Amino acid sequence: QGILERLDAGEIVIGDGGFVFALEKRGYVKAGPWTPEATVEHPEAVRQLHREFLRAGANVLQTFTFYASEDKLENRGNYVAEKISCQKVNEAACDIAREVANEGDALVAGGVSQTPSYLSCKDKTEVKAAFRQQLDVFMKKNVDFLIAEYFEHVEEAVWAVEVLKESGKPVAATMCIGPEGDMHGVSPGQCAVQLVKAGASIVGVNCHFDPETSLETVRLMKEGLQAAKLKAHLMSQPLAFHTPDCGKQGFIDLPEFPFGLEPRILTRWDIQKYARKAYDLGIRFIGGCCGFEPYHIRAIAEELAPERGFLPEASEKHGSWGDNLSMHTKPWVRARARKEYWENLKPASGRPYCPSMSKPDGWGVTKGAKELMQQKEATTEQQLKELFQKKK
Amino acid sequence: QGILERLDAGEIVIGDGGFVFALEKRGYVKAGPWTPEATVEHPEAVRQLHREFLRAGANVLQTFTFYASEDKLENRGNYVAEKISCQKVNEAACDIAREVANEGDALVAGGVSQTPSYLSCKDKTEVKAAFRQQLDVFMKKNVDFLIAEYFEHVEEAVWAVEVLKESGKPVAATMCIGPEGDMHGVSPGQCAVQLVKAGASIVGVNCHFDPETSLETVRLMKEGLQAAKLKAHLMSQPLAFHTPDCGKQGFIDLPEFPFGLEPRILTRWDIQKYARKAYDLGIRFIGGCCGFEPYHIRAIAEELAPERGFLPEASEKHGSWGDNLSMHTKPWVRARARKEYWENLKPASGRPYCPSMSKPDGWGVTKGAKELMQQKEATTEQQLKELFQKKK
Amino acid sequence: QGILERLDAGEIVIGDGGFVFALEKRGYVKAGPWTPEATVEHPEAVRQLHREFLRAGANVLQTFTFYASEDKLENRGNYVAEKISCQKVNEAACDIAREVANEGDALVAGGVSQTPSYLSCKDKTEVKAAFRQQLDVFMKKNVDFLIAEYFEHVEEAVWAVEVLKESGKPVAATMCIGPEGDMHGVSPGQCAVQLVKAGASIVGVNCHFDPETSLETVRLMKEGLQAAKLKAHLMSQPLAFHTPDCGKQGFIDLPEFPFGLEPRILTRWDIQKYARKAYDLGIRFIGGCCGFEPYHIRAIAEELAPERGFLPEASEKHGSWGDNLSMHTKPWVRARARKEYWENLKPASGRPYCPSMSKPDGWGVTKGAKELMQQKEATTEQQLKELFQKKK
Amino acid sequence: QGILERLDAGEIVIGDGGFVFALEKRGYVKAGPWTPEATVEHPEAVRQLHREFLRAGANVLQTFTFYASEDKLENRGNYVAEKISCQKVNEAACDIAREVANEGDALVAGGVSQTPSYLSCKDKTEVKAAFRQQLDVFMKKNVDFLIAEYFEHVEEAVWAVEVLKESGKPVAATMCIGPEGDMHGVSPGQCAVQLVKAGASIVGVNCHFDPETSLETVRLMKEGLQAAKLKAHLMSQPLAFHTPDCGKQGFIDLPEFPFGLEPRILTRWDIQKYARKAYDLGIRFIGGCCGFEPYHIRAIAEELAPERGFLPEASEKHGSWGDNLSMHTKPWVRARARKEYWENLKPASGRPYCPSMSKPDGWGVTKGAKELMQQKEATTEQQLKELFQKKK
Repeated sequence: QGILERLDAGEIVIGDGGFVFALEKRGYVKAGPWTPEATVEHPEAVRQLHREFLRAGANVLQTFTFYASEDKLENRGNYVAEKISCQKVNEAACDIAREVANEGDALVAGGVSQTPSYLSCKDKTEVKAAFRQQLDVFMKKNVDFLIAEYFEHVEEAVWAVEVLKESGKPVAATMCIGPEGDMHGVSPGQCAVQLVKAGASIVGVNCHFDPETSLETVRLMKEGLQAAKLKAHLMSQPLAFHTPDCGKQGFIDLPEFPFGLEPRILTRWDIQKYARKAYDLGIRFIGGCCGFEPYHIRAIAEELAPERGFLPEASEKHGSWGDNLSMHTKPWVRARARKEYWENLKPASGRPYCPSMSKPDGWGVTKGAKELMQQKEATTEQQLKELFQKKK
Repeated sequence: QGILERLDAGEIVIGDGGFVFALEKRGYVKAGPWTPEATVEHPEAVRQLHREFLRAGANVLQTFTFYASEDKLENRGNYVAEKISCQKVNEAACDIAREVANEGDALVAGGVSQTPSYLSCKDKTEVKAAFRQQLDVFMKKNVDFLIAEYFEHVEEAVWAVEVLKESGKPVAATMCIGPEGDMHGVSPGQCAVQLVKAGASIVGVNCHFDPETSLETVRLMKEGLQAAKLKAHLMSQPLAFHTPDCGKQGFIDLPEFPFGLEPRILTRWDIQKYARKAYDLGIRFIGGCCGFEPYHIRAIAEELAPERGFLPEASEKHGSWGDNLSMHTKPWVRARARKEYWENLKPASGRPYCPSMSKPDGWGVTKGAKELMQQKEATTEQQLKELFQKKK
Repeated sequence: QGILERLDAGEIVIGDGGFVFALEKRGYVKAGPWTPEATVEHPEAVRQLHREFLRAGANVLQTFTFYASEDKLENRGNYVAEKISCQKVNEAACDIAREVANEGDALVAGGVSQTPSYLSCKDKTEVKAAFRQQLDVFMKKNVDFLIAEYFEHVEEAVWAVEVLKESGKPVAATMCIGPEGDMHGVSPGQCAVQLVKAGASIVGVNCHFDPETSLETVRLMKEGLQAAKLKAHLMSQPLAFHTPDCGKQGFIDLPEFPFGLEPRILTRWDIQKYARKAYDLGIRFIGGCCGFEPYHIRAIAEELAPERGFLPEASEKHGSWGDNLSMHTKPWVRARARKEYWENLKPASGRPYCPSMSKPDGWGVTKGAKELMQQKEATTEQQLKELFQKKK
Repeated sequence: QGILERLDAGEIVIGDGGFVFALEKRGYVKAGPWTPEATVEHPEAVRQLHREFLRAGANVLQTFTFYASEDKLENRGNYVAEKISCQKVNEAACDIAREVANEGDALVAGGVSQTPSYLSCKDKTEVKAAFRQQLDVFMKKNVDFLIAEYFEHVEEAVWAVEVLKESGKPVAATMCIGPEGDMHGVSPGQCAVQLVKAGASIVGVNCHFDPETSLETVRLMKEGLQAAKLKAHLMSQPLAFHTPDCGKQGFIDLPEFPFGLEPRILTRWDIQKYARKAYDLGIRFIGGCCGFEPYHIRAIAEELAPERGFLPEASEKHGSWGDNLSMHTKPWVRARARKEYWENLKPASGRPYCPSMSKPDGWGVTKGAKELMQQKEATTEQQLKELFQKKK
């Protein structure tokens, strides 16, 4: 059954977790460029991560094609002596995802994300060409559906959806925005409306913000769609980092990004709260982005097991709410084998010399920036920076 | 070259990281029992983790045989329908470790750890039999050397070393104790002396405490050995969790153990400080235990690259001190591409409703318990608990 | 010169600090009722506190008549064997304030605050009568001007202003609200407009929120007045407690209120930031409420000394930005004798087992409550509570 | 009844709080010099603070003669145009304390503290002369007993006790040290022994550390006295600031000293815990030092009311464990009117951008400094600093 059949039937679809962060920690992706040449260089590592997400309960395996547009791979390089072609990276990603998907009951989704071409103000034709190049591979490899994800500007996201729709396959679209909207000041509700009008059947957010903030953004998208009398399935794939202190551009601007985010990592119990809230909000495609490890995805599947009627395979190695501690030799550890304990725990950081919140860096959130962008004097960060410098 | 040849020549040997925690998060190990039947059930997952540690710079791959004594596997079960024999688990562990070691320049170390037999007061013969059963496999599979690790009582650790020495192979021994010493009140210095006298060529600590506390324990061991005019190589494999608030029994007693430790996870920069301190203290076998992911091991190898003269393979996907951020589009993110930035960052937890330290649970640290144990009225927790209950 | 002459001439007028909190800590006021019978019972204590604020730089001494309406003194009692009449409490307050004001260059302001009569839905006539009773004393004692402060409902504040205006003296009016507006849902801008139309020459906020939040509320008031083309002087007398975690009803709902607020107390440097921000926003009557001790008021006077051209008397016992540390015997303490040091200090709590933020108690902030109040189904908390209970 | 009669009879004696910090906040004492010329300049302010401590339950009023030795007043100046003589400051202090003591049932204690003469290595004769000059005033004014307090070096404290004993009056002696002992490395136990041998009837600690640390120091003093078979009454007057992060020299070295300590201020409930612990340890002279405001002293008297059989006068303005909240209009505030609530509250700092602990400044705690001091190469900070600079 395809993604839309499942969602239309009211099923809960569980997404996978974050590849670039997980593989960076495993030694296969470089922070900064974040490009996915590992599909060619170390397919076994990519395969293993897919498999872990599958075991954890993911119903969708996204091809590891994040930032795999040709301009991106060219632009920042994939940091290897011999360049690996965009086509090879994308093909390998499709093959690996399909191989693992066949080990279980999962769909393969081909994914595109925002491009340097757009950010450097290339025109629509050029930007669309980049997406089409990836789409050609997805069609050749016959993925099950398509996701346009990680877009900061709805304009580019709409172009991506338009290209992906040419395929005839179902299209999902998620933006990496918060409740303040996209980088041009378009509100979440308006973003959702534009994406659905462009052809997306599933809309929502991914990355950049923690679950709480991301769900608020999806709620605003839902309101926007209702006001416009449009229908679409909702989707959320947030960070597995707590970011109550983010500005408009999300965790990139936090001083801890990307090498000091550890104290912000969500526990499995935080994830269960997220899964429940997402479900209650009407979201039925629930997954994760950066920071989501396999056990986080499993936590979604475990929280929603009563609704779904089954547990994921990896739960054979996990007791619900810590019940596997009930045989511990120490009585006070046994006392942790219950839901109330973990639900109410306020975990200490072990870092008494550190604060609990940070001030985000950057000028992206200032009123001035917002106004310049709304006046369309600047539509990219580069332009914005130049404008600011001119004014000084 | 063997482990002792390397250490005698003054080489820095890098250990691997923590298997049970990493594989629990990947979905292959159950918290509570923490047993390693994954070597048989999911060898590809174990193999991949070994490979990641190898790429990260590990010179030693420990067989995944933690808690793989027969009594442990029997006692708490390996939680699968069909029991897998102790021999099969240990053999598979050896095969996988050797296979990956051959992909690079690493030694294979067979490992034993504390047994339920000892904790339930079985006699020396019986406890030694459990170690010998594992040793038989290690000999058959011809591991390069042996590690007795994760012992809370030096008495049992000495028995383990005695058994392992029968093999003629070099033996390392690490205890999971802090500066207060073992659970019977034997000081770290005395523990080290007893272990070396029993035949260990390498001594130190693993697990239960953060790097700072663990290094203090090794320092006390070093002092004890010097006072006794004994020589041995030093070794440390601490947690990758901050635990300034632990009591005598370490992180087990923290309320966050084992499912809420996320905010305590060390950053790569914390690890670099650990590696430098360990080196300065004279430790030359430097690795990690629970919480150490591949990127943490890589951080050890990167910190000590000047001394060693080379970087690990996985550093091709990592810039030193964040220098791969120097091409980021945002100027404030580029400003993070330097050592001073990451060295001085005090990372926020993103959890303003949580404290920074916890009070450990349990009665293990009380004066009363200590005295009872020193008087040998109680030598196990169980006895101690009964004594306490009798007194009330 | 009167208050309006000063403000009209562009002078900065400094208010005094918080009497009920300071005198509670000194042993003369009871938390809970918070009534000011100390004016009769212990005039020397009240006099001393006035004197300290005067020395610290206050230009206005408010009569200690907070909650000194007859219904309040009756209602909750003044908790002494022999009741002290409302008139005596108010008269003594006026005498003490005048006596100390004459020691320097300060104005005396008679103050009224919200009444139990209003909260229990007595009608306008009855509520106004309570204010008029206090006003009679203020007129007899010839105070310099009048302040209606600590109102949660603009309706009652307007009534108070109307009564006070009967005197012909200048009237200031401050509400204890945040940016969300009054308890009936009237916005800060609308509150300001109503108060000025009722006759207030000075409007602003006092109590319930920290300086940052309070200044945001005054900013909204200013916007409201500008939109309505009304003119008034602006005034702020916030808490000296950090309350970033408050809900709509302010610090009353924080779990720490009123006996655990210590870790939230503002430093003198926090106050200097507040004074500067208030000034920059155009506020010219700058003082404090609960938590403001004499040294906090001095910090306002010191921050604005460049604009005012003089320091307060108490600054002879205080070096600017810690410069009195420059002769300390320890070099690292001497190093603290500079502005940059104190401006950038992030003071530690010394409480690693405590969080940095709390969740407010209460149901006052819920959407449901707001709607019921806006629909006028409930206008008091009591009614609201009953409505909620009925619905369950 | 004199102090010794009371203590010998088993009475609990409650001390007063911290004058220099309280009067600094009220505008009468300058931080840095911390000298008490306010006794002459503003006697009404000193009198009022004495009175508040008396009302709060203090049985002992210490003359405000801290740092009032002639060398100190000369050395750093009392920062007024016309110098006020040492004799006048001390005489006025005695008069004010006696006047207020007569309003209740309190003893007057004359106090001396460490001198610049000692720190600049003047000889015993000269240092003793400074104490004798103050003692002459105390004898003329006939104080009830004497306290030598705030000594970092037991040698000087012994000299002070020897001088004070010449009077024939009872002598108490408290050092401002922690569990590591005095600045020359003398342990708390040895300090206590030397002080008792010199003639002190009451020994203990004051200032520099929080209650928890101070009580540990007194415990060590008690052990020292027991081992030496000496008898003395115990006394504690700690800070009302949380200082778990102090080094050997206490809160002076914390980055927040003295103008950013607010978040560390103890609540009244923290004080009740302190009073109970002090009592349980056998301490019967229980008071406070810097940071102790009148309500903190009241908290001691309230906690020990069951043992003493009465409440202090100021408790008529305070409900036990918040019971005065039981009539609050909001049900959730009423719910705070109970012991369990306040005992278990973990008060938030309201400062999410601040840490919970600080690293102390200074080199006083280093091993090197300790060794130099123990080798008597340096006995003062100045010498130590010079030695360190020579070595560089």
